[in-house]
Amino acid sequence: MPSPYQTAVFGVSGYAGAELARLLLHHPLLHGHAPIFFGRPDEEKGTPIPLTDLHPQLADNNGAGILAVEPFHWDRLGKQNVDVVFLATPHEQSRAWVPRLLQHGMRVIDLSGAWRLDQETNRAIYNLEDQDPDAALAIQKKAVYGLPELHREQIASARLIANPGCYATSIILALAPLIREKRIDLGRGIVCDSKSGVSGAGKTPTAKTHFMHAADNLSAYSLFNHRHTGELLEQLGLRAGDIIFTPHLLPIPRGIFSTIYVNLQEPTAPEVIDACYRNFYADSPMVRWSGSRLPEIQYCVRTSYCDLGFALARDGKRLVVVACLDNLLKGAASQAVQNMNLLFGWPEQEGLT
Amino acid sequence: MPSPYQTAVFGVSGYAGAELARLLLHHPLLHGHAPIFFGRPDEEKGTPIPLTDLHPQLADNNGAGILAVEPFHWDRLGKQNVDVVFLATPHEQSRAWVPRLLQHGMRVIDLSGAWRLDQETNRAIYNLEDQDPDAALAIQKKAVYGLPELHREQIASARLIANPGCYATSIILALAPLIREKRIDLGRGIVCDSKSGVSGAGKTPTAKTHFMHAADNLSAYSLFNHRHTGELLEQLGLRAGDIIFTPHLLPIPRGIFSTIYVNLQEPTAPEVIDACYRNFYADSPMVRWSGSRLPEIQYCVRTSYCDLGFALARDGKRLVVVACLDNLLKGAASQAVQNMNLLFGWPEQEGLT
Amino acid sequence: MPSPYQTAVFGVSGYAGAELARLLLHHPLLHGHAPIFFGRPDEEKGTPIPLTDLHPQLADNNGAGILAVEPFHWDRLGKQNVDVVFLATPHEQSRAWVPRLLQHGMRVIDLSGAWRLDQETNRAIYNLEDQDPDAALAIQKKAVYGLPELHREQIASARLIANPGCYATSIILALAPLIREKRIDLGRGIVCDSKSGVSGAGKTPTAKTHFMHAADNLSAYSLFNHRHTGELLEQLGLRAGDIIFTPHLLPIPRGIFSTIYVNLQEPTAPEVIDACYRNFYADSPMVRWSGSRLPEIQYCVRTSYCDLGFALARDGKRLVVVACLDNLLKGAASQAVQNMNLLFGWPEQEGLT
Amino acid sequence: MPSPYQTAVFGVSGYAGAELARLLLHHPLLHGHAPIFFGRPDEEKGTPIPLTDLHPQLADNNGAGILAVEPFHWDRLGKQNVDVVFLATPHEQSRAWVPRLLQHGMRVIDLSGAWRLDQETNRAIYNLEDQDPDAALAIQKKAVYGLPELHREQIASARLIANPGCYATSIILALAPLIREKRIDLGRGIVCDSKSGVSGAGKTPTAKTHFMHAADNLSAYSLFNHRHTGELLEQLGLRAGDIIFTPHLLPIPRGIFSTIYVNLQEPTAPEVIDACYRNFYADSPMVRWSGSRLPEIQYCVRTSYCDLGFALARDGKRLVVVACLDNLLKGAASQAVQNMNLLFGWPEQEGLT
Repeated sequence: MPSPYQTAVFGVSGYAGAELARLLLHHPLLHGHAPIFFGRPDEEKGTPIPLTDLHPQLADNNGAGILAVEPFHWDRLGKQNVDVVFLATPHEQSRAWVPRLLQHGMRVIDLSGAWRLDQETNRAIYNLEDQDPDAALAIQKKAVYGLPELHREQIASARLIANPGCYATSIILALAPLIREKRIDLGRGIVCDSKSGVSGAGKTPTAKTHFMHAADNLSAYSLFNHRHTGELLEQLGLRAGDIIFTPHLLPIPRGIFSTIYVNLQEPTAPEVIDACYRNFYADSPMVRWSGSRLPEIQYCVRTSYCDLGFALARDGKRLVVVACLDNLLKGAASQAVQNMNLLFGWPEQEGLT
Repeated sequence: MPSPYQTAVFGVSGYAGAELARLLLHHPLLHGHAPIFFGRPDEEKGTPIPLTDLHPQLADNNGAGILAVEPFHWDRLGKQNVDVVFLATPHEQSRAWVPRLLQHGMRVIDLSGAWRLDQETNRAIYNLEDQDPDAALAIQKKAVYGLPELHREQIASARLIANPGCYATSIILALAPLIREKRIDLGRGIVCDSKSGVSGAGKTPTAKTHFMHAADNLSAYSLFNHRHTGELLEQLGLRAGDIIFTPHLLPIPRGIFSTIYVNLQEPTAPEVIDACYRNFYADSPMVRWSGSRLPEIQYCVRTSYCDLGFALARDGKRLVVVACLDNLLKGAASQAVQNMNLLFGWPEQEGLT
Repeated sequence: MPSPYQTAVFGVSGYAGAELARLLLHHPLLHGHAPIFFGRPDEEKGTPIPLTDLHPQLADNNGAGILAVEPFHWDRLGKQNVDVVFLATPHEQSRAWVPRLLQHGMRVIDLSGAWRLDQETNRAIYNLEDQDPDAALAIQKKAVYGLPELHREQIASARLIANPGCYATSIILALAPLIREKRIDLGRGIVCDSKSGVSGAGKTPTAKTHFMHAADNLSAYSLFNHRHTGELLEQLGLRAGDIIFTPHLLPIPRGIFSTIYVNLQEPTAPEVIDACYRNFYADSPMVRWSGSRLPEIQYCVRTSYCDLGFALARDGKRLVVVACLDNLLKGAASQAVQNMNLLFGWPEQEGLT
Repeated sequence: MPSPYQTAVFGVSGYAGAELARLLLHHPLLHGHAPIFFGRPDEEKGTPIPLTDLHPQLADNNGAGILAVEPFHWDRLGKQNVDVVFLATPHEQSRAWVPRLLQHGMRVIDLSGAWRLDQETNRAIYNLEDQDPDAALAIQKKAVYGLPELHREQIASARLIANPGCYATSIILALAPLIREKRIDLGRGIVCDSKSGVSGAGKTPTAKTHFMHAADNLSAYSLFNHRHTGELLEQLGLRAGDIIFTPHLLPIPRGIFSTIYVNLQEPTAPEVIDACYRNFYADSPMVRWSGSRLPEIQYCVRTSYCDLGFALARDGKRLVVVACLDNLLKGAASQAVQNMNLLFGWPEQEGLT
């Protein structure tokens, strides 16, 4: 029985777009209804090209190769009765197009940072300009932050889902259980030292993503002003002074490793920490809690999981939590599919394990 | 004019040993007096093998290839009037042999961790056993921690120099200026998130150093109990609760990157931080302070420098200091040569720039 | 409806074993009948350990983690009515155990090199010793070389399938179409320059697989005497002097790239070459022929395909064929599953696309 | 005593330029006469920037940082009495400027491909246009191909030295001894399968040099039409049909590995091959012949040597020669310095070992 739902992906040419295409094409409950793939809305000219010209790894001997990536036209979109649109487009693009897509009655899962932030002070870093600021504000108010482990119910009924940032996903999932139980001594500050593979920097060739710069190297960037910081503050209910977040560029293709340092309010037994996380994630199929066995990047890349583990000092107060995920999957495409599953009332992990 | 000094290297087969051999063979003031290369003292049998069989990269067309690595004999050593012995040997080996080498009147620069720690509680992690505990204790008391930037004068007249750990070098150099000026709010704790290339794990093939495990991966290890922690405490005058040190294994051959988080006692201007470091390292040729331009591993590997830089939050209190060095050079072999230069009264940077 | 077939895997702890486990656990037609995982037959002691302790990347939240890797006992095997046994074991082990497994009525797919070679002269390089040479010879005669693209029909009815070597798979698939059409001028010789990722060297830590040796390096090995040469000769009907095969170790985890140089009998148009391959692989779902667009390792790793492409000199005689595959998949585990599919009368590509 | 010679480098911003700067700054016989560093002639505007802003790894605490990279002016150049100009500039740039530089009486070592090829048919691939074709032709006739091992004497008295291509250097050095002794059966063809690190592709960020494309990958390119082919033909005296050269892109920063396949005229003993190479390179300090121990990339990178080794089939006819070098050193900057040494009558290896 073919799926009753039609999906579309904008911006399928990037790394997250390729993973989205792969996941949607193999999704068991979308069987018989291939997604429509569009180039970016700013590329209205040109002719359709086979998806597998863009991403040869997706080729097989019957089918995927036939799927074309089309230049975008509103007409084309409208005729298709698309139920959900995935935007793997630049922030500005997403900001501009979401109002119109919603008007057409489509639901949107936006992978950019355009709609993630509720507060103007946090959003300022994106320098977004709205044609109709009041309408944009109204949309912003109803946008749901698409982290299923925190907002499962709101996601299911959302019109616009703002898929979280890759770094933010790793850090929020690592801290949320401790914060819910008010275990952290915020007066001593939280340190988030994150490391990401190069795919996080996008597909456009730059000096920074040149092999000669990235290979055999490690560098830190955006100290005290990375865009994902606002997501941490809003989702975890923190003030700016409570947390430091430092991203680093790892010489690997994909994967994020966040080493997170907190001081607990009082001496705590490891079993209590273990229980805190087990309870919080008892019904979260996409989080793997491994307790005192620390996650490593190699075990999470090319999976849709966020892996979490911890180490506690003998004083029972100084705690390190490690979070690992694949920035293109749980940090982007898989999380988007997880949100789609919730939208359609399907099991959260469908097509992801 | 040939050098009046004779050097010897034990354990030239390892990674640090190879770098030591290279540096000593090309040292301008050791001209005409090639070092003697010994295998490990536990390999008393066997025949000499050419150095370049062990390390083909050291070969040229006239000379280095002739140098043999000899099985160790006390007789062989005694006949040579060796002035300085470099030990690139396991901790236990260094602990056992230093007393005898000192008795023979040689000066020793030990690259292992055997003699770095003054306090029994810190040293316990090495599980070292002394044949003559009293004699060992007496030697320990006189050993000098071989970080020239901190102990230049004592090094010049030392009999036994304990060359610092690679991680410890990066962290101590990053923190010493702030600590001397009492700028850190220790009550909020110091976080040292360090990342090291695989050569730091040594030459013995293990599951951890297998290419398949190390490549495309990042992992954390020895949380709250890494051996270098004691060096941090003793050299910086800290208590155990003041500092967290977490080492990670990077998928690169060499290089250390330490991201160090401190809270300052009071809001401070960036210029003050800049001056603090410039003053401290004004006469230290092997430290490159780059101010607000952060170091990267690629710029320090295969150099003998420790690179330092910083970023300060707008509140003037939350400070990140980044330290980079090559773990086999400033973290091992170059630092040993720097110590030798001080021992012989030569310019500190001789043969290192 | 659960599968009527029971499978077992010996030697699940290695890299190919992990991939086999993953493929079998997710195989749609093996649903409801999890494979039995055994350690190596030489590890008869010890207690079962969870599969996911060996391979954490296989963990999910319900199921795979429960599967245990058991110490091997004949009793345990016999009770299970196992239909097909996969041997991901050392050559010697496979040679010793296959006779007994066949006696018990099981079919065997052996991933080692023990049973691939028909001629004693080629097999000599393995130094295999048989307890009952006559019986072994009889088994050898009936063993089928498990390259589905060449021996589809024999595989379907085989008792013992000798899964091909990873290098051999890439080269045989690249040359078979040209040889069938007798296009190659053998008098000028065939050159096969192959490059493989480090997983091909196995999981045991050695000097060669140490990250410090493999990373940032390329080396050639086993010139003129690699074990897979015999497979090339026997499967392609060549004499030793017709072909040179040189393997190289690439600084990547997985993937094989074979650059194959042949001289054609007569000047040939590119379209003729293209047609030659298209015809040959028309019914082969696991071969992707891309014509003049050359394959790259990145597009085949983590797929079960062998990718083929070509470039022809303007003289129409000098031809380069490029073959790429994942050495752990089409070069090992996926090919084994492809063979299993043929054995059970299922579509060849089931569970592989 | 300061050097009597003044050097200048155009195009110091690239990878080869950085190595040239490093080698010249540390050259013992250029002491006291730092090179002048120019940006590209097409960048006539702008202000001088410190060399170490371009290449932070070159910084030390006294000197190198002060050296500025200046925008180019003819006036500036003329006032300096420059003896030798190194051009690390694009082909077109080198072609256009060499006539004028020679007119000013300077000697030129050009690292581009603009002047390497004697025959118009080979040079055509560069699409070079000359303002004064006759003058250019006259210059071309007198240009010397700067491979010291073949043209030592002509180089010493040349006005214009065309520094060889990196691939070409490895292949010509591997084949020249066999060709001089007429040992190769050219009728069976020569296959050169070369692999290069990413720095060979230059510093401009492109899709091909993006970390995500180059890492964990291998690809072949420019089959049957790479620009270096002409150098092979001209320098080795071959016809186009005699040789196939296939370059591949390795996922490493630097290093070239060429695997070269030849058939000998008659069965030959390994000792004869060994002697052939030893004789040829007896007076060549920058070639390391290792006989039957094959070179590896890791042993030649960051050295100025070309390493050569061989393997011979038991038939004594099929021969594989392996050549390794660092594409930025013996394949570019070191070879340029070697040529400068010859120009100035200094020992060939000065400043290179």
